[in-house]
Amino acid sequence: MAVKIHCIADVCLLPIGTQTPSVSDYVTAAEKLIRESGLKSTLHSAGTTIEGEWSEVMDLIGRMHEKVHEMGVLRIQSDIRVGTRTDKSQTAKDKVDTVERKLKGL
Amino acid sequence: MAVKIHCIADVCLLPIGTQTPSVSDYVTAAEKLIRESGLKSTLHSAGTTIEGEWSEVMDLIGRMHEKVHEMGVLRIQSDIRVGTRTDKSQTAKDKVDTVERKLKGL
Amino acid sequence: MAVKIHCIADVCLLPIGTQTPSVSDYVTAAEKLIRESGLKSTLHSAGTTIEGEWSEVMDLIGRMHEKVHEMGVLRIQSDIRVGTRTDKSQTAKDKVDTVERKLKGL
Amino acid sequence: MAVKIHCIADVCLLPIGTQTPSVSDYVTAAEKLIRESGLKSTLHSAGTTIEGEWSEVMDLIGRMHEKVHEMGVLRIQSDIRVGTRTDKSQTAKDKVDTVERKLKGL
Repeated sequence: MAVKIHCIADVCLLPIGTQTPSVSDYVTAAEKLIRESGLKSTLHSAGTTIEGEWSEVMDLIGRMHEKVHEMGVLRIQSDIRVGTRTDKSQTAKDKVDTVERKLKGL
Repeated sequence: MAVKIHCIADVCLLPIGTQTPSVSDYVTAAEKLIRESGLKSTLHSAGTTIEGEWSEVMDLIGRMHEKVHEMGVLRIQSDIRVGTRTDKSQTAKDKVDTVERKLKGL
Repeated sequence: MAVKIHCIADVCLLPIGTQTPSVSDYVTAAEKLIRESGLKSTLHSAGTTIEGEWSEVMDLIGRMHEKVHEMGVLRIQSDIRVGTRTDKSQTAKDKVDTVERKLKGL
Repeated sequence: MAVKIHCIADVCLLPIGTQTPSVSDYVTAAEKLIRESGLKSTLHSAGTTIEGEWSEVMDLIGRMHEKVHEMGVLRIQSDIRVGTRTDKSQTAKDKVDTVERKLKGL
C-alpha cells in the first residue's frame, strides 16, 4: 500500500497562532526529526529538501506536524513541492550543480 | 507507523516534458483517482482540495504520481498546501463559508 | 517596467504570530481588497485565484500583505501558484470545465 | 503604486510542454536574470530565494516568465513562497543560521 517511488520533497512548515512571529523553536524541532530520520536532507532559508521513498518522506512530514502540535501549536500549515521522475536518478545536489555549471558556460 | 492526524491538503500536479502545454488528460486521470478514493474532495482551477487522514491523503497523491508516470510522463512536480489543527474539526467548506459570511458583515 | 503578461495566480495568505489559530478576520480583509480591485477572482478553501496582468495581480497581493500588517500582524507568509501561457487565452473557469467534461467522457 | 515593503521570496519556475523532462536550460536562463538584477539571491535545489522590495522582486519573476516564453516555452507555472515582516529586518541567511545554532544547543 505504501508508495515506494523515489521523490525529492521541499517542505516549508508554518505554525499558526504562536503568540510571537518568531517560529524558529518549532522549525528547529521539526528539523531535528528530519536529521534523525536517516533521510538525506538540505536545510535552506525557505524550507528543507528531503530525499527518499514517497511514503517515508510524507510520513516524516506528518510526524513533524505531530511533533509541533505536541509542543502546543494548535494549527500548522506546510507547503510541499515534491518531484518524481522515472527517466533517471538525480539528487537535489545534482540539480544545483547542473545550473551552476551551465551558468558558467553562458 | 502511518500518520493518522486529519488534514486538508490542496494539491496542484504538473506533468513536465509533455510535448504540448495542454495537460488536462493527465489532470483528469489524477482527478479520477481522487474521486474513486472515497475521500472528500473539491476541484478548483488551481488544484484539488482533499480531506482525510494524513497517510491516506499523501498515499493517494503518491498514487496520482504513479498513475501519471504510467501514462508515459517521465517527470512530475506537485505543489501541496497541507493544514492540520488540533483545536477543532473544520472542513474545507467551513473555511469558505466563514470568510463569505464575514465579508457580508463588513 | 511593469510586467503586462496575463497570469492566473492562486494565493494562500497566512498571518504568523496571531495569538489564536483563527485567521479568518485577516483572510476576510485581504479578500475584501481582492473584490474591490476589479480583477476577476474565485475564493476556494485553500486560497483565492486572481486573473489579470502580472504586475496588477502581484501589486494587489503586496497590498494584501500591507493591509494585514496594518491590522497588527507582524509576519505574513503567502504561497502563490502563478501560471502564464502564450498559446491561448484561458480562464480559471475554463480549466475546471475542461477536466469536468473529460471526467464525464471517461 | 509599487509596493515597497521588503520581502523574501522563494521561487520555483516550471516550464510546461517542453518535449523532454530536462528543464535546466530554462532554469539557467531565469537564474541568469536573477543574478543580473542586483538583488540578493540564493540558489538551492528546489528554487531560488530572492530578497528585496516587493514590486522589484515580483517584476523580476515576471521578467523570468517573459524570458522563458521568448525561448519558446508556451506555458510556465511558478510556485512562490513569499514572506514579509515588520518587527525586524532578517535576511534569508539569518533564518538558516538561527536554526543551525538552535540545533547545536538541543
